[in-house]
Amino acid sequence: MPLVQIKGISGFLSVAQKQEIIRKVTDAVVSVEGEGLRSVCWVIIEDVPSGEWGVGGNPVTTAALRIMSQAAS
Amino acid sequence: MPLVQIKGISGFLSVAQKQEIIRKVTDAVVSVEGEGLRSVCWVIIEDVPSGEWGVGGNPVTTAALRIMSQAAS
Amino acid sequence: MPLVQIKGISGFLSVAQKQEIIRKVTDAVVSVEGEGLRSVCWVIIEDVPSGEWGVGGNPVTTAALRIMSQAAS
Amino acid sequence: MPLVQIKGISGFLSVAQKQEIIRKVTDAVVSVEGEGLRSVCWVIIEDVPSGEWGVGGNPVTTAALRIMSQAAS
Amino acid sequence: MPLVQIKGISGFLSVAQKQEIIRKVTDAVVSVEGEGLRSVCWVIIEDVPSGEWGVGGNPVTTAALRIMSQAAS
Amino acid sequence: MPLVQIKGISGFLSVAQKQEIIRKVTDAVVSVEGEGLRSVCWVIIEDVPSGEWGVGGNPVTTAALRIMSQAAS
Repeated sequence: MPLVQIKGISGFLSVAQKQEIIRKVTDAVVSVEGEGLRSVCWVIIEDVPSGEWGVGGNPVTTAALRIMSQAAS
Repeated sequence: MPLVQIKGISGFLSVAQKQEIIRKVTDAVVSVEGEGLRSVCWVIIEDVPSGEWGVGGNPVTTAALRIMSQAAS
Repeated sequence: MPLVQIKGISGFLSVAQKQEIIRKVTDAVVSVEGEGLRSVCWVIIEDVPSGEWGVGGNPVTTAALRIMSQAAS
Repeated sequence: MPLVQIKGISGFLSVAQKQEIIRKVTDAVVSVEGEGLRSVCWVIIEDVPSGEWGVGGNPVTTAALRIMSQAAS
Repeated sequence: MPLVQIKGISGFLSVAQKQEIIRKVTDAVVSVEGEGLRSVCWVIIEDVPSGEWGVGGNPVTTAALRIMSQAAS
Repeated sequence: MPLVQIKGISGFLSVAQKQEIIRKVTDAVVSVEGEGLRSVCWVIIEDVPSGEWGVGGNPVTTAALRIMSQAAS
């Protein structure tokens, strides 16, 4: 209320990184919606198994995502 | 690939505020996952009508949310 | 922190019926999970337009749903 | 039609409790929408790992949820 | 069972096109899962308003999507 | 843009079958929306544990689904 549901590929993020995303995304949302909504800001992280997420019809793996994440933007 | 789906209550945020959330949440996620994933970071904003989101069994309205958002945290 | 997301077809339920569902579903969930979780039980109702929900490849309309709901079970 | 998707924290509910929720939530929804819709009432239960669900930016664990559920409402 | 939930940007597809997607996606899924599951294959189409879907932090509009869809692949 | 999220029951489909669904559903969607959108067509497959998906209040198992899928349509 806000409710944030985030999906990524399994094995890419550590639990510590997921919790860093929870903190930073909450801060981002509350900076726009108002601090009074912080306690009702929920952020849920869900993993999809490597190879079960398709882009353009091709399955993406954790290994491919890791290479992509390290490329220059 | 991260995929971020955000739900809130209709009439609370302007389109400009939603787009500010899109930018800030993308920055937050990419700061953890790597700049190389920015182009495949999707953020979707969806509205639920006022009165059709229940907390503890009670429907929350846009008006109630506005008062709550302005309270000190 | 149970989160309940309910989808139905637009125009089938009134707002009062949606709020009755919010109350009854919250009671049902809390009766299993414990009263202590009532305040963090969220129930969100979302509508899909008539004709944009397919069953077996065929779109279902609000009118068809209304007839079906009144049939003997 | 109705479609009910419920998320909770992994390790909190037993399979028997999840199936009790499936029964009771179906009864709750059908009591409002009509018995004729019982056969097309779907209830899906999904678990989010302990520590990967944030409230107010802080991750919630199964252990914390257990304590909370036993508190007086 | 299978349950297919499809999101797109509002104003891009006509209702007839959405129903064509419902038919074709059902056929695609059932060709793999078995014809016996056709009657329990649900496909739900949901629209997100133009400008409220971000890619790489930038909101995508219906107009931009239309240009993109007509480009050679 | 389009975003397709598919849920099924765990243990029913092999990874190869899931990837066949990803390919065929992408083809189906792009045949309607335009080839230019192929690269931004995402298909995500998610599994729900056997017994945690209710139809009409009764949990469905992988074994039951397998029998059903082989029945004549």
